Amino acid sequence: MTTLTETERAETLQPLLDAGWRVLDDRDAIQKEFKFRNFIAAFSWMTSVAIWAEKLNHHPEWANVYGRVDVTLSTHDADGLTALDITLAQKMETLY
Amino acid sequence: MTTLTETERAETLQPLLDAGWRVLDDRDAIQKEFKFRNFIAAFSWMTSVAIWAEKLNHHPEWANVYGRVDVTLSTHDADGLTALDITLAQKMETLY
Repeated sequence: MTTLTETERAETLQPLLDAGWRVLDDRDAIQKEFKFRNFIAAFSWMTSVAIWAEKLNHHPEWANVYGRVDVTLSTHDADGLTALDITLAQKMETLY
Repeated sequence: MTTLTETERAETLQPLLDAGWRVLDDRDAIQKEFKFRNFIAAFSWMTSVAIWAEKLNHHPEWANVYGRVDVTLSTHDADGLTALDITLAQKMETLY
């Protein structure tokens, strides 16, 4: 698993940035704050994402308070963003 | 919902401190880091806790990375620790 090339970044990252993701300043990682109407909605979404994360064997860093979920994605083994992060972020958007 | 009295703190908080919880320096809140063998174990525990949290109508601040879950409990409406935080912390310990 290697980090994204500049071409891949331009192609796959831009739609995520348009959807509200941002690249962190201090890490090669992407982050987004997802908002839900309440805790049940937030945790239901997290549960769907959790099953996909396990299936992809790629897990998010995420924090939840009531209807809010802050997600950070990066690939520890590659020390940066890889295709797995893009795939998981896209899945999160589909499930949102 | 009022914050815990000194007597209640002595009686109900101490067993939690003995179990690894700590009172934060800058907030009237308790925190613990729970560790699990993998993501499935961590998220399964979170799911059980989530159902109890909703049932108690008292929700944690929590962050997860793979097999680790950092939990912070405090009662926003009371601006500090209440009996609800103790109840939820005890439930988390029972489910752990």
